[in-house]
Amino acid sequence: IVELAEDGAGHPDSIAAITGDPLAGPVNYTGQRLLLDDVRLVSPVIPRSKVIGIGRNYAAHAAELNNPVPDAPLLFIKPNTAVIGPGEPIVYPPETENLHFEGELAVVIGRICRRVPRDRAAEVIFGYTVGNDITARDLQTSDKQWARAKGFDSFCPLGPWIVTHLSLDEASDLQVTTTVNGELKQDGRTSDMVQGIAELIEYVSGFTTLLPGDVILTGTPAGVGPLQPGDQVAVTVEGIGTLTNPVVAEN
Amino acid sequence: IVELAEDGAGHPDSIAAITGDPLAGPVNYTGQRLLLDDVRLVSPVIPRSKVIGIGRNYAAHAAELNNPVPDAPLLFIKPNTAVIGPGEPIVYPPETENLHFEGELAVVIGRICRRVPRDRAAEVIFGYTVGNDITARDLQTSDKQWARAKGFDSFCPLGPWIVTHLSLDEASDLQVTTTVNGELKQDGRTSDMVQGIAELIEYVSGFTTLLPGDVILTGTPAGVGPLQPGDQVAVTVEGIGTLTNPVVAEN
Repeated sequence: IVELAEDGAGHPDSIAAITGDPLAGPVNYTGQRLLLDDVRLVSPVIPRSKVIGIGRNYAAHAAELNNPVPDAPLLFIKPNTAVIGPGEPIVYPPETENLHFEGELAVVIGRICRRVPRDRAAEVIFGYTVGNDITARDLQTSDKQWARAKGFDSFCPLGPWIVTHLSLDEASDLQVTTTVNGELKQDGRTSDMVQGIAELIEYVSGFTTLLPGDVILTGTPAGVGPLQPGDQVAVTVEGIGTLTNPVVAEN
Repeated sequence: IVELAEDGAGHPDSIAAITGDPLAGPVNYTGQRLLLDDVRLVSPVIPRSKVIGIGRNYAAHAAELNNPVPDAPLLFIKPNTAVIGPGEPIVYPPETENLHFEGELAVVIGRICRRVPRDRAAEVIFGYTVGNDITARDLQTSDKQWARAKGFDSFCPLGPWIVTHLSLDEASDLQVTTTVNGELKQDGRTSDMVQGIAELIEYVSGFTTLLPGDVILTGTPAGVGPLQPGDQVAVTVEGIGTLTNPVVAEN
């Protein structure tokens, strides 16, 4: 976890080493500071339980795939074994011929919670990161259930770090952009979500206990499209950072 | 874990205390032996990653809900937070008006594995237990995706223990029965699965890395039906044991 606000953003190109798990309790700074360029970041969180994704949570994205906007959040689960970090390869499996990117704001849960009312949602949020809800669009259609199409290993890039200083209001109006090989493909704002962050936490925690480190992917704006081996896909959420991953063919 | 074969089934009414995690490596017997009646068993496994369920894997069950038998396994994911043990209550949430039992054979994975060919499936199986794929049938229809309908807390009873001495062939021909308040509701055999255990492991490990403790629920035979608060539901798999849970209203 890189907390740029910790020192007033005075060291934007470096990270502070810590001991302990920030999701489990207080941490200690070792005093060591490393240049970002000299380290390899991994996913800032591997959920011990689940990544919950939200389908069709931007009206323009629902429309581009000829789907209606659902009345209630449309939920799916990505296994924690799908999570990779920044720079790690998205593996294009032979089972699909239509692999898509979906850039998203990701909410990281900080407290064990169930049935959280929306007006208390902020209390259970640890922070925010960037997610890419990689989807085998052809298998999503043919399988009907989305577990496989969205659950292959490497289909859940998260990172590059968790930002913990954004308020719920701030997180609710951020630009989300996705580029492929530098070309802009998605450009939306979290303010365009059909169900906002607080409503999603109320709904998701209405059926399942959320654990520290669980992640809610909040849905993708319009502009989704295919990836090919050799591509570089980069998702940027304003105020958080950029999550970049190469795409490689599976051997 | 209660391994009845360990002492030739000489102590069927007692368990041997161990130290260590059988899913992680060798265990030691402490020498203590406790009567089954004197202990409260919990779920024999909480998957660190996922419970994978298989829909419509018995032709007679697919037919009773007017569904076709799928060409390939129909997969869904239950979160590990849904797991409960024997005797623990299935909580009937206010969001559903049609809560169903689904008695099943559950396969517990023993090794980290990916893309396991069916003829090597036996190598990655740690053992077998009994599962009940509790399903809010109304939400399953209205939500389309099954994450919520099958993912509520307490919707995945597992137990009462993991049996590790059954061969794949033996596990592939066992009677599965479910009773509600003592009345027989389901009576099938694992030999009637559309996709067998080895085929399921090949298919599931074809998209996701399986970790020790991950569970595959192999599908339910015909005879599913509703539960009400106050009911006792018991699933028995021949040669493994009986998983009994009460149903209680939420609050």
